[in-house]
Amino acid sequence: MKTYSVTFLPEEKTVQAAAGKSILEAAIVAGIPVNSVCAGEGVCGKCRVLVKSGKVEAEPNSFLTRRDIQRGMALACHTYIHGDVVVEVPLESRISGVPQLASEDAIRFGRISERVGEGAAFAHAPLSGKAYLELPLPNLTDNIPDQERIYRELSRHREMPTMHIGLAVLQKLPELLRESGWKVTALLGYRGRTTEVMEVEPGDTSARHLGIALDVGTTTVVAHLVDLNTSETLTTKAKYNSQISLGDDVISRIMYSRTGERLKQLRDMVVGDINDLITGLVMDVKAKFHDVTYVVCAGNTTMVHLLLGLNPANIRREPYVPCAATLPVIRAAEIGVKINPRGLLLALPCVSSYVGGDVVADVLVTGMTDSEELSLLIDLGTNGELVIGNADWLVCCSASAGPSFEGGGITCGMRATTGAIEHISLKPDGRIDEYSVVGGGKPVGICGSGLIDAIAELLRVGCIDRRGRFVKTECGNRLREAETGEREFVLFPGKATALGKDIVLTEPDISNLIHSKGSIYMAAECLMAHVDMTFDDVKHIYIAGGFGNYLDIERAVEIGLLPDVERSRFHFVGNGSVQGAKMALLSQEALTYLQVRIAAAMTDFELSSDHKYMNEYSSCLFLPHTNIEKFPSLRGKYGKPAQAEGARARA
Amino acid sequence: MKTYSVTFLPEEKTVQAAAGKSILEAAIVAGIPVNSVCAGEGVCGKCRVLVKSGKVEAEPNSFLTRRDIQRGMALACHTYIHGDVVVEVPLESRISGVPQLASEDAIRFGRISERVGEGAAFAHAPLSGKAYLELPLPNLTDNIPDQERIYRELSRHREMPTMHIGLAVLQKLPELLRESGWKVTALLGYRGRTTEVMEVEPGDTSARHLGIALDVGTTTVVAHLVDLNTSETLTTKAKYNSQISLGDDVISRIMYSRTGERLKQLRDMVVGDINDLITGLVMDVKAKFHDVTYVVCAGNTTMVHLLLGLNPANIRREPYVPCAATLPVIRAAEIGVKINPRGLLLALPCVSSYVGGDVVADVLVTGMTDSEELSLLIDLGTNGELVIGNADWLVCCSASAGPSFEGGGITCGMRATTGAIEHISLKPDGRIDEYSVVGGGKPVGICGSGLIDAIAELLRVGCIDRRGRFVKTECGNRLREAETGEREFVLFPGKATALGKDIVLTEPDISNLIHSKGSIYMAAECLMAHVDMTFDDVKHIYIAGGFGNYLDIERAVEIGLLPDVERSRFHFVGNGSVQGAKMALLSQEALTYLQVRIAAAMTDFELSSDHKYMNEYSSCLFLPHTNIEKFPSLRGKYGKPAQAEGARARA
Repeated sequence: MKTYSVTFLPEEKTVQAAAGKSILEAAIVAGIPVNSVCAGEGVCGKCRVLVKSGKVEAEPNSFLTRRDIQRGMALACHTYIHGDVVVEVPLESRISGVPQLASEDAIRFGRISERVGEGAAFAHAPLSGKAYLELPLPNLTDNIPDQERIYRELSRHREMPTMHIGLAVLQKLPELLRESGWKVTALLGYRGRTTEVMEVEPGDTSARHLGIALDVGTTTVVAHLVDLNTSETLTTKAKYNSQISLGDDVISRIMYSRTGERLKQLRDMVVGDINDLITGLVMDVKAKFHDVTYVVCAGNTTMVHLLLGLNPANIRREPYVPCAATLPVIRAAEIGVKINPRGLLLALPCVSSYVGGDVVADVLVTGMTDSEELSLLIDLGTNGELVIGNADWLVCCSASAGPSFEGGGITCGMRATTGAIEHISLKPDGRIDEYSVVGGGKPVGICGSGLIDAIAELLRVGCIDRRGRFVKTECGNRLREAETGEREFVLFPGKATALGKDIVLTEPDISNLIHSKGSIYMAAECLMAHVDMTFDDVKHIYIAGGFGNYLDIERAVEIGLLPDVERSRFHFVGNGSVQGAKMALLSQEALTYLQVRIAAAMTDFELSSDHKYMNEYSSCLFLPHTNIEKFPSLRGKYGKPAQAEGARARA
Repeated sequence: MKTYSVTFLPEEKTVQAAAGKSILEAAIVAGIPVNSVCAGEGVCGKCRVLVKSGKVEAEPNSFLTRRDIQRGMALACHTYIHGDVVVEVPLESRISGVPQLASEDAIRFGRISERVGEGAAFAHAPLSGKAYLELPLPNLTDNIPDQERIYRELSRHREMPTMHIGLAVLQKLPELLRESGWKVTALLGYRGRTTEVMEVEPGDTSARHLGIALDVGTTTVVAHLVDLNTSETLTTKAKYNSQISLGDDVISRIMYSRTGERLKQLRDMVVGDINDLITGLVMDVKAKFHDVTYVVCAGNTTMVHLLLGLNPANIRREPYVPCAATLPVIRAAEIGVKINPRGLLLALPCVSSYVGGDVVADVLVTGMTDSEELSLLIDLGTNGELVIGNADWLVCCSASAGPSFEGGGITCGMRATTGAIEHISLKPDGRIDEYSVVGGGKPVGICGSGLIDAIAELLRVGCIDRRGRFVKTECGNRLREAETGEREFVLFPGKATALGKDIVLTEPDISNLIHSKGSIYMAAECLMAHVDMTFDDVKHIYIAGGFGNYLDIERAVEIGLLPDVERSRFHFVGNGSVQGAKMALLSQEALTYLQVRIAAAMTDFELSSDHKYMNEYSSCLFLPHTNIEKFPSLRGKYGKPAQAEGARARA
C-alpha cells in the first residue's frame, strides 16, 4: 500500500502513514497530543489542525467556517492523507501543559477542609514491607531449610500471616543467602490474607522503600511517590492521560476499545503515562525503580478496566455491567508498569460501572463513614458521582454531566491548565472586573470554574436570563452574531488574549453548562429522595474531583449546581483519589476499611431507572432552578420566577 | 569445532557430537537410556557399551577385563569420540523396561496390609473443583459485575473462602459469559487459604475433571490419573526417571547439578518423563490435557528440588540444608508440566534434606498418626527413611543405604524390571530350588529382593558365613576365581540366563548388601534409642518404598535388615508416595492433615551426629548381627556367634 510522509509542526516530526489514513491516526503514531473529545467520531470539532501543504480529502462538517476552510483548517479525525503533507497542530487543539495538582493548589489556597483526613488515623502498615534479617547460620542442630529460616526470623518480629513465596525467589535463595553472609532484606507484599516474600536482597536495603499512589483519571494521571517507612510524600507529578487523543470521556474510549488490539493500545497509552510519571518521580529523588515495590491506584471503573486490559464494553450497555469491581492484586510488570519487577499493583475496588475506586477513595478521605452525621459527597467531573451516608449506610449514584466542566463542548472551553481563565467577575455593565488565569499571563480559553463564574456573573448583571438566553438590551455591542448564525458574547477581545482570538460564550455553550449542572443537581435531589431525606438533613457536603477544587461555592449555588444550604457545610476534598490510594498504600487497615466498610457496604442506586430523574430533569435547566423556592437565599435576586416561562419552553 | 556422527545400536539412531565428547553425553542427546549409577564419574562401571567401529579414546578403568576391552567394550562415560562411531548399548547397560507398579502388584499379591488406608476417611474435596453455574442474566436491578456474579453464584452452593482470580481469566470473562449464554463451568483451585478461579469455560464441563498423583522417585516416576469427581483411579503408568543417565542416586545428581544449565537439564529430564506419563494416561482414557487441572507430587527432598529447579547443593553439604521444605503451589506450566495451562501443581512438603514428601505421604497412608499405638515406618530404597511415632509425636531419620537394594554396586544386580530374579530359594547343596523372574522368562540379573533371598539362603545352607565370606568347602565347584581375582559364586550358569552370561555373586556384592542392610538396621536401633524405646514397644512396622513391597520379611529378618519381632506386626504400605499424593489430591482435609499433623509435627533426628550410629555400625556388618541375642528367633540357626571374630575383623 502507498504510504506518505506526514510532518507535524511546530515539532517538525515526520511519520509515514498509509494512503487514506486520517491525520488524527498519524498524529497518534507520531505521539503528537491532539485533542479529540469524541474519539475521532467527528462530532466534537476539537481536533482542528492547519494543513500547510499536501493533498488531503476532508469530509464536510459543521465546525469549520468558510474562512477556516480557506485558511487550510481541517478536522484531523475526518481529513484523510493522499500525499505527503505538512500539518500544524495549533495550541488550542493540543493536550498540553501540565495539569494543576489539585490537592497541592487546594492546600496552597487553604481550601481543603480541616474535616478531611480526620478519619485517617489508621495504623502505619504499608502494603509492602521490608525486613532486614540477620539469620543465624545453620548447623547440625539447626538445619531447617533456607526458606523456613527466613519465615522463622520474620515471625520473631511480627505476627505471622500465611506466607507465600514464588518459585523465582526460591530458585535464587540458596546462593543469595550464602553469598550475603546470611544478612538479607526480605521484601514482603500483602495480598489479601497472604503475605508474599516478593524478593530477598543481599544486605540491608530497608531504608530504601518506596511506593506509588496513583490517581488514574479520565483526563489526568497523578502520581505521588511515598516513602513507605516515614509515610512522607517525597514528590508528586501529574500528566494528561494520553488516551484523550482517542476520546475525551469514558464513553468514547469504551466505544474506541472495541477490538483487543485497541484495548491494548489504550492500556499501553495510560501505562506509558504512568511510567513517564514514575520515571520523573524516581529521578527527582535519585532513587531506583527497584526501590519502588507497590503501586496503589484509584480510578473510575472504566479507567481501571482499561488499565488492566479488561473489556469495558458492557459498562456502556444497559444494564451497565463491569467485568469486575474488586480487582486482583497483580504484579505491576504484568501490565508493563515499571517498578521493581516483583513489585505489586492494586487498583482500589469499584462499586459499579459508574462509581469507581476514585469515589471509594474520596469517601475514605472524607472520613464520612466514621460519623453518625449525614454527609453527601459530590465528585464533579465529566461524570458526576454522589454518595450519601454515614457510619451505618452508604448509597451512591452517578450522572453523566457531559464534558463542559472540563471545557468540552464549549466554544472557547479548555481544561484547567496554563492559560485557562479560572475565575472571573463582571462589572454591572458586563465588562470584566477581575479575572485570574492558570499560570498567569493572557488567557487562552476558559475552564469549568471560570465558566461557572462567567455564567453566574452574566446572570447577576442581567446579560442572560434564567433560561440562559442573552438579554440583548443588557449586552450592548458585546453581543454579536457569529458566522454560524448563533449569538455570541465577547468575554475577552482578541487583543487581550494569548492567541489573538476573541474569547466568546455562545448560547449553546451556556446551554451545555446548564445541562451539566442540571444533571448533577437532579442526581443529588433524586438521591436525597431515594433515601427519604432532604438537603437540610445533610450536615456536610464534600466536593471532590479535580475540577471541584477550583469551584467558587457561592457561584455554584447561584447557577443551581450545588444546593442552597449554609455555606459552612461545604468542604473541599482535594484529590481524594490519590489521597485515598495513598492511605491504602500506607495502611493495610485502611485498605481493609476501604474494601469492607466502604466499597462492599455501598449500595448503588441506578438513576437511569429512576422516574423522578427523567420526569423532573427539565426543571433543573434553569438558573438556578424553575422553582426558586429551592434556593431561598437567591429569592428575588433575579427578578420574577421563570417557572411558567420555562415550563412553556419545554412543553 | 569438528563434529562426528555417533550411531547407537540396535536403534540405529545417529546424532552429531563434538570431537572429544563422551559416548555417554552423545547417548543423552540421542535419548538412549544408558545406565550411569555414578553420573559419569567413572566409578560405577554400569555404562558399558560395545564400540563396533570408529575411533575413540578411553581412559583406563578397573571395571573392564582384558577380554572385555579386546571385544570393544568401553565405559560410555570415559570413552571419548574422535571419529564417526557406531556403538551398541547392551541390554544390561540400559535403563529399560517398565518398572513394576508396586502398589498394583502388591494388591495383586494381597500383600498390602489391611491396616493401610484405615486412617483415610477424609472428606472428598479435591484440590481442584469444577462448578457448573447457570448465572441469572443481569438486569438493571441486578447489575453486579461479571466476576462478582460468579462469586455470588459460587457462594450459594458452598462456603466461600477467600477468592482470587487471575488477570488472564478476567480479561476473557465478559465475552465468554455472554457467548455461552451465562452457562459456564468455573474451575476452582485450592491454594492454601485462597481459592483461585483458575479458568471459566463455556457450558457444563464438570463431568470431565481429572487430576494426577505423582510419585517422583529417584529411580521411578509413577503417575495415577484420577477422576476427581468419583475418586476413581482411571489408569496408572510408571517409567524410569531419565535422570538415571546422570546419576543413580540423589547424591550423584546433586553433584551433577552444579551449574544452572545442568540443573535445568535435570529438571527437563524429569518433566519430560512426567509429560510422557501424562500423555499416556490421557490417551488411555481418551481425555484431553485440558481436563487435567491439578497435579500433586510426592518425592524425596532432592527430587522435589530438581523438579522445581531449586538448587539442591546444600542438601549434600553439612549441615544438610534444603532450599525449602514447604513448597509453593505453582502453575504446572511454570515448570513445563503439560496439563491445563492454568492447572496447578503442588509438591507435598518435606521435613528435612533426607526425609521428603514421599515419607510424609507414607505416614499419611499408614494412618499411624491416628492411633496411640506406637508404629515404625521403614521406607527402603537407595536412601532409607524411618519414622517412629503415634498420634502424639513423630520422629524421623534417614540413612544412606547405598544402591544395592536397587541392584547398584552388585556385579549382576539390576532393578526390579523384566528379567530380574525377584525371589530365589536354594537346595541344601546350594543349587537353585525355586526362583521367580519379573515378567517371567530367563533371568537377566538379580534385583534387591532376590539378592536378599539369595544371601539369606546361602547363609542358611552354609555357603557363606555370618561375615558374608564364602565357605569354600560348602560351595563346591560353584565357587570360582574371577579374572579380577575376587571369588565369585555362580548362581545361574550362562546357559540358563537371558544374556548367556553367568549370573554370579561376589564377596564384594555380599559385602555391599551387608553394608546396606546394616545401615538401615542401625538407623532403626538408633532411632529407638533416641526416643528411649525398644522394638518390643512397637506395635506396627510399616514397610514402604518401591523395593520394600517385594521383600520376603522372613529373609529380611534372617539377614538382619529388619528387627526380629513377631512377623504379624509387619505391614506393607505399597507405593505410599503416590497413594499419599492421591489422598491429598482428593481431599483438602487430607492435605491439611498431612501438612500440619505430619510434616510440621515431625522432628528430624540427624543420624550423622549420633555417636551410637558411628560407634556401633560395625556390629551390624554381620548376618544378622554380631549379637545374635538381638535376633532370638534365629538363635542357634547359624552355629556359633560371630561377635568376637567380627570385632577382630574390623579392629
